[in-house]
Amino acid sequence: MHEQEQALRELVKQMEDAWNAGDAAGFAAPFTDAATFIHIYGGQIDGRPAIEQAHRFIFGGIYRDSRNQYTVRSVRFLRPDVAMVLVEARLQFRENGEAREIQARPTMIAVRNDGRWAVEAFQNTRISEMPAAARTS
Amino acid sequence: MHEQEQALRELVKQMEDAWNAGDAAGFAAPFTDAATFIHIYGGQIDGRPAIEQAHRFIFGGIYRDSRNQYTVRSVRFLRPDVAMVLVEARLQFRENGEAREIQARPTMIAVRNDGRWAVEAFQNTRISEMPAAARTS
Repeated sequence: MHEQEQALRELVKQMEDAWNAGDAAGFAAPFTDAATFIHIYGGQIDGRPAIEQAHRFIFGGIYRDSRNQYTVRSVRFLRPDVAMVLVEARLQFRENGEAREIQARPTMIAVRNDGRWAVEAFQNTRISEMPAAARTS
Repeated sequence: MHEQEQALRELVKQMEDAWNAGDAAGFAAPFTDAATFIHIYGGQIDGRPAIEQAHRFIFGGIYRDSRNQYTVRSVRFLRPDVAMVLVEARLQFRENGEAREIQARPTMIAVRNDGRWAVEAFQNTRISEMPAAARTS
């Protein structure tokens, strides 16, 4: 496998492992200082410190002891040092004692500076039922 | 204003105008041949022909005579020829005779080849109420 693609897949694995350990600093570590993060409710978080803080909050609350599984669907190099990584996420957690699952499609835009890849943008969209009227097939 | 930023804002305006004219080919024109499009229900559409076809379907159905307003929130150059454009969308349409509105946060990743900007990735996330347990403030 392409060495750069391998590095990007490791970044995703690092985030998955950090999520599953409830480690907010580890989850935020791959982001650039000024990274943009858009979560499944459409809110935007600006910068690594705020990304870390928001994840510390949810790892201590609604997503405590949750399990997130990231599957890399594709890695595309827009430039040798800019990559788009399409991921499918499956998040399992408990809410009021009941098992819940969220499936989503996070996309990461990563840039390589001084030989190191970092996530400049992360956007997540929940996979939900499309209204029948909007379905094309 | 920076000439390249101006070109990107014009691309967004072109998409907004095409949407409001119900013009699927015009809406899809700014995308690259192999562009990735993730819509608010988390589905993925691959390539400009499929993006055009999907929009032709919704422009003739659920979003017929709808009005979409794109507000560019920021343009960030990841490289001189790779840009991230953060947009807020306000879509007004009618469903069974009732007025509906969807607010969303589409992000476009654009690349410039041979002096021309094109959209390589478009991801949209609906702005929805966050569960109280997930709120950080």
